[in-house]
Formats: sequence, C-alpha cells, structure tokens
Amino acid sequence: MTKKILKELLLNRNFTELRKELSNMNPVDIAEMLRELEIDEQLLVFRLLKKDEAADVFSEMSGDEQKELINGFTDQELSVILDEMDEDDLADMVEEMPAGVVERVLARTSPEMRNAVNQLLQYKEDSAGAIMTTEFIALKETMSVKEAFDYIRAVADEREDVYTCYITSGARMLEGVVTVKEMLLSGLDEQIGTLMNRNVIHVSTTTDQEEAARLFDKYNLTALPVVDNEGRLVGMITVDDAIDTMREETSEDFEKMAALNPKEEDYFHTSIMEHVRNRLPWLLILMFSSIATGLVIEKYELAFQAMPALVALMPMLSDTGGNAGSQTSTLIIRGMALGEIRLSDFLKVVFKESRIALICGLVLGIANGLRIFIQYHNIVLASIIAITLVLTVIVSKLCGAIMPMLAKKLGMDPAIMASPLLTTVVDVCSVFIYFNIATILMGL
Amino acid sequence: MTKKILKELLLNRNFTELRKELSNMNPVDIAEMLRELEIDEQLLVFRLLKKDEAADVFSEMSGDEQKELINGFTDQELSVILDEMDEDDLADMVEEMPAGVVERVLARTSPEMRNAVNQLLQYKEDSAGAIMTTEFIALKETMSVKEAFDYIRAVADEREDVYTCYITSGARMLEGVVTVKEMLLSGLDEQIGTLMNRNVIHVSTTTDQEEAARLFDKYNLTALPVVDNEGRLVGMITVDDAIDTMREETSEDFEKMAALNPKEEDYFHTSIMEHVRNRLPWLLILMFSSIATGLVIEKYELAFQAMPALVALMPMLSDTGGNAGSQTSTLIIRGMALGEIRLSDFLKVVFKESRIALICGLVLGIANGLRIFIQYHNIVLASIIAITLVLTVIVSKLCGAIMPMLAKKLGMDPAIMASPLLTTVVDVCSVFIYFNIATILMGL
Repeated sequence: MTKKILKELLLNRNFTELRKELSNMNPVDIAEMLRELEIDEQLLVFRLLKKDEAADVFSEMSGDEQKELINGFTDQELSVILDEMDEDDLADMVEEMPAGVVERVLARTSPEMRNAVNQLLQYKEDSAGAIMTTEFIALKETMSVKEAFDYIRAVADEREDVYTCYITSGARMLEGVVTVKEMLLSGLDEQIGTLMNRNVIHVSTTTDQEEAARLFDKYNLTALPVVDNEGRLVGMITVDDAIDTMREETSEDFEKMAALNPKEEDYFHTSIMEHVRNRLPWLLILMFSSIATGLVIEKYELAFQAMPALVALMPMLSDTGGNAGSQTSTLIIRGMALGEIRLSDFLKVVFKESRIALICGLVLGIANGLRIFIQYHNIVLASIIAITLVLTVIVSKLCGAIMPMLAKKLGMDPAIMASPLLTTVVDVCSVFIYFNIATILMGL
Repeated sequence: MTKKILKELLLNRNFTELRKELSNMNPVDIAEMLRELEIDEQLLVFRLLKKDEAADVFSEMSGDEQKELINGFTDQELSVILDEMDEDDLADMVEEMPAGVVERVLARTSPEMRNAVNQLLQYKEDSAGAIMTTEFIALKETMSVKEAFDYIRAVADEREDVYTCYITSGARMLEGVVTVKEMLLSGLDEQIGTLMNRNVIHVSTTTDQEEAARLFDKYNLTALPVVDNEGRLVGMITVDDAIDTMREETSEDFEKMAALNPKEEDYFHTSIMEHVRNRLPWLLILMFSSIATGLVIEKYELAFQAMPALVALMPMLSDTGGNAGSQTSTLIIRGMALGEIRLSDFLKVVFKESRIALICGLVLGIANGLRIFIQYHNIVLASIIAITLVLTVIVSKLCGAIMPMLAKKLGMDPAIMASPLLTTVVDVCSVFIYFNIATILMGL
C-alpha cells in the first residue's frame, strides 16, 4: 500500500479497509509510513493494529517518535503495547527516554518485565549484556524430546527465538545446547541429555558487542548464549541484534576513519547543529596540527625561492604519501576489526608492508621522475622527485601500518588512525624528506 | 584443544584420543588449526572426522587449501565429503577450481547435486542467485501441520534451514511462508493454508546480493526466498550467507574508499605482488591527477614570491578541505549503502550540507584567521586565510556530497568518490581559491 492510499483511507475514515490493508503489511513498512504522518494520524493507525503488531511497529520507531506516541497513548493503550514488546527493545527505549516518560512507562509494565528491564539497563553500553534478551528457552538434561516440545509450545509465544534451546543445571549453569532441528530428527522419547552438544560457544555479559557479533559471523550462528561471571546462563543474543551491532560498529568505523564523531541517528534525523558538533572538533584539531607542516616548509624558503617548481610539486608528493598511507591503514584497521590481523602480527605486517612499499615507491618514483625530466629537462628536479617519492611511500605505508596497531596496543580505537590523522603526520614527513633531498641535491 | 596437543597426538599416533578431542571441536576451529599443518597431517585428521564433520571442515577451508586436499583424497574419500556438502558451498568451491579439479569433483557427485551446482553457477557473481541454496523446504497449502512436520522430519537432514518453510502452488509459484514456531503453536490438524502469511518478502535471482542482505537487516529476517522471473520459488538465502555478504560488501567499500582494488582473500593470504597490483593503479592515477594542482600553483608564482608565508600555509588549507570533504562523502556513501539516502534526496542533501559547511567554515576561518593575525601581525594574510577557509570548506563539502551521488546516478560505485579522489579535486579548488583571494587582497 502506498502512502497516498493510506492517507486517503484515513481522510475518508474508511477504517475497515484500512485495517485490512494494514494487516497485510510488514511492521517495518508500517513504521516507515507512519513516520510521514501527523501524530494524531499515527495514533489513529495504532488503534487499528492488532496488539502484537502494534508492539512490533512501535519497536521500529525512533526514540523521539516513541516519546511523542507515549504522550499520545492512553494508559490502557500504553499497557497493551508495553506488554507485547520484547524486553530488550523495551530496555533500549527506556534508556533514551527522559525521566518523566520512563516513570510512566515503568508504572505500566508488569513487575517481571520491570525487573528484566532494570537488569538489562545495568550492563555497559557496548557489552553483550546490553544487546541480549533474557527471553530464552532453558531445558533440563533429564527431559525427553516430547517434554521439551511441550515446554517450548507453552512458552514459545513469549520468546524471540525458539529454535536454539539451552540446557541448564540446577544452579542455572549453562550445560549444553540443542536445536529444534535436532529434536525433530530424534524420537520423542529420546533424552535431551543425550542429544545436546556440551561445547557451547558463549560469551559473558561483559564481552564487547563487536566481539560477540564477530562470533556469529565466524561460526555461522543464529543465537549466542550469554553467561554471567559465575557461568550462569542469563540471556541470549539473537542474530537480528548481532546484525544491528555489525552495522552500527561498521558505521562507527567509517565515521571515525573520516574524522567524524560517530552519530546515533541516520543522516537526515541528525540536526544541522548535531552534524556540526560531530565534525568541527576533528577539523579544528587537524587544522591546527598541520601547522607543523608549515613550520617545516618555512625553514626551507631558500630552496623554493631558488627553484619555484618545487612548490608546484608539493601537493602531488603529499597527496601520494597520504594515499599510500591510507591504503595500508585501511587494510590494517579493517583486518583488526575482523580479527584477521592481531597485535602479535606486528612484525609480519611491517615486513610485508616494507616490501610492498618499496615496489610501489620505485614504480611511482621512476614514473614521475621520467615525467618531470621530459617536462622540465631538469635532471636534478627529476631526481629530487623520484627519490622523495620512494622514501615518502615507504614512510607513509609504515606509518599506516604502525599507527593503527599502536593505537590498539594503547587501548584506543585503531579507526582514528585513518586517512585524516595519518595524512597530517605523513605531510610533515614528506615535506621534510622533500626539502632535505632538494637542499642536498641542489647543493644549497 | 590447542595446536600443540593436536600436534603431539598426531606425532604419537594416538588416534583414539585425537578422534575424541576432534569430536568436541567446532568445525571452524578444526579448519583454523588444520591450516597450520602439513598436507599429509591434514589428510590424516580428515580421516578421523565423522562424514558430516569432514564436509563442514572442508567447506571452511580456502580455495587453495581445498585444491590441495582434493588432490590428496582418494576417490572414495572425496565422494563422501562432496555428498555431505551444502550445494551452495560446493558451487562456490567449483567456481574457483581449475578445470582438471572441477572435472574430478563433478565426476564424484550425484547427478542431482551436479545439476544443482550447474544451475547455481549460472547466476551472476553479485546476484542473489549466486548466494542462495536450493535446499529449502516447500510445503503445500492443503497439508496439515502434522503432515508438514512429517515432511520436515523426512528431509531436514539435507536442509540448511528448516525453520522457515515456504508454501508453493502446483507450478512451484511462491504462495506463502510459515515458520516452525507458528506450527508448534498450532494444533496438529490445522491446515498450513490457514497458518501461512501470504505477504512474503522475497527477491529475484537477479537481485543484487547487497540489496538482499539489506532486507535481512531491515526486516530482521533469518531466511529470504528467491524466485525466478516467473515467480517460481528456486532457492532461499540463509542468514549466515547474508552476513557473509554484508561483511564482504563492507570490506569492498572500505577498500574502494581508500583507493584500493578490492581483494578476495584476507591480508595475509594476499601475496606481495597481489597487494601491489591492488594498490598501484590508483596511486598512479591520483599522482598524475594532482599535476593539475601543480599547474594552478605555477600560475601564481608571483604571489608566493611576494609572500613566502603563503606556501607554508598551503598544506593546512588543502588538508582541511580534504578532511571537510571526506567527512561529507563518507556520510553520503555510507548512507546510500544502507539505503538511508536516495538519489531523490539530492537537493535535500545539498541544502543540508551547505548550511553545515557554512557554520564549520566560519568557525575554522575565524579561529585560524585569529591565529595568523596573532602569529604574523599581518591582517592581509589573516584575511586571506580566513576567507579561503570558509570558501574551501563549502566547496569541499559540496563536492563531497555531489560526487558520490553523481557516481551513483552514472551507475558507478559511489565508494570510489571517497577521500583519495575527492582530495585531488578539492586540492585544485582550494589552491585556486587561495591564490585568487591572495592576488586580490595583496593587490597584485
């Protein structure tokens, strides 16, 4: 259904038809269309949705949109929606709301839900605990497959993922895992204990979210159990939340690598001033850092007064250095994010990059040296450029390899050591190399 | 089990213990450890694995490793492993093998498997068809839940994902979807036709993989059906393959944005010469493109001979322009990749960026103008820098917005319009603005 038809049905108050159309739509699409409507119209649509659908649509809205809706809902309506929401979605929402709204929300939720939400809110923002749900299925070793299916049937409605079931001991310790597929393929009398796999890939509540998401990728998981410090099963991460984490962490890396403070909302939902706040700090820091390059240049006034062509070739050298360096830093940052490159690989990386840099530098140096010689018929200038290029490319690629790994070693995010900061460092180096070689070869 | 223990057990030929240890390990971890062993030892380990485990471990190895193993396997061993492999994994493997190996492999697979693989190989590399599996579960509307479960039990062993079942009509047209959870929650006599959801999110075999992966993220899917041109169900994409696609496409974007030709293998599995081949072309193109900046500078020799400080400030201006531009281009490229920004948003983006750029430019211009005035006590130089910064930031951010969108409009990948290429364009602009303003204000 297009937005236009929806608008028309709303305008004509043709609610029967509207309800029918809505029941055929995916909650994600309904949320997307609601976004374009006035709040009164949004509330009207919510009243036409089934309970569970209303909760799904509500969960898809952004924090600001949810706040507005909560203010519009009656207490009764709010209770119904909160009741049907997944605990982890509710916790995410509560985290973003102002105190007044939180109070109203928590007053309308069941005591169990409130407990679960309070628990979830205690985990650190980037931890596995913060993205897990506490609504998992826990079976006992002694159950038969039939008993397990009966149990699953009884609780499935309240669970996000019913296909991966965990086996816990008396003290809620994680003992094993069994899938519904495995149960379907066994006799109904078989014991869960004989079916289960005792080697469960799991994380702790304090594990980094990114690390948890990486396990989904590495082991092709659809669910990942989360245990507390004592090894007790306290939650599970579902694959949709792992995918969200991957997307968010990747966007964060893209943004950090472009000298941006990562933003929460998408491009259009971020205000002008918010965009400015995310961009200005790094622009200022980098702008003032590049004064260093200027200081180096000032020292060599003599050289470029003697041969003005040196100035014209400066951007080419620093651009090439910056590009060569950011090729390397991007590969290293990405490789570390994916777990392909470890800190212990440091020497291997440096050795590999040295050889790559030498070959790239030689090709670039010879190509551009020849070009300069043909254009200016000046063998000194051609040699200055060729030698500077070789050295600049080597230094840049080594900086591109060393800086992100050093950042990681120091507990910082390697992503900030990408193109922008790297370019500033490489600029100083390339200018320094350039004018020193020029001074030597020109005999100044 | 650590690699050391494995090595020891192999050396002592303690196969009973080794088999026991292996049966407790995840295939992904076994593959990781095999990688460090000699081929003879690898073959030995394979002979100790259970059939299905051997196939799983084999599927995790890289193309080169698989080739070596295939050459080491007896015909009998090869048949067993191929038989247990997922069709889509087998197709991926066959695609990378030399003709001789492919022949041997296909001779050892069942006719049905061979047909499926041949079919999968016909889809274009980046299409949904190329990552789908043909091993899905198709039910009929008229089945009861009990019949459906019986059918699932009968075929589950050969299927990757049994939890999402599709309903097809006589002509194999996709009619609906039903989950095992929904079936578990219904009576055994209920008809599938009444349970199923007719609004199935689906893609066609020719849909772009990235687009398909994005649907998993948007709609929180764990499986996505694939239909042919006539709407017949021909396959399904499972969530692990969608996650692989996301990771690969993101890595490709990172690499393109850093002026790298995307590589297939990870950092350490790419040879030195391969790395050079992926890096040199763009370095050469960009190096020679920045000659343009040099040409602009050469025209203004008069200006920087009159005020040498102008040269020292050049890197600061072009770096700031480059950074401001790549902040914008990164947000736009990422926004388009995630589907948040569309081509139709062009004017909205340009308007938004203009305002952000104006504010950022003014702050940077004033801050640096003041700094210059304090340092050099030269109001003309301070004004030149301040005005140039404002204009450069505006031009850079507009280029950063327009260039990726233009690329997309022209059917190119927006990711190539990132920092490296953008910097080259912005360099020319900033130098041009700089020296023009300098010439005017200095009255040259």
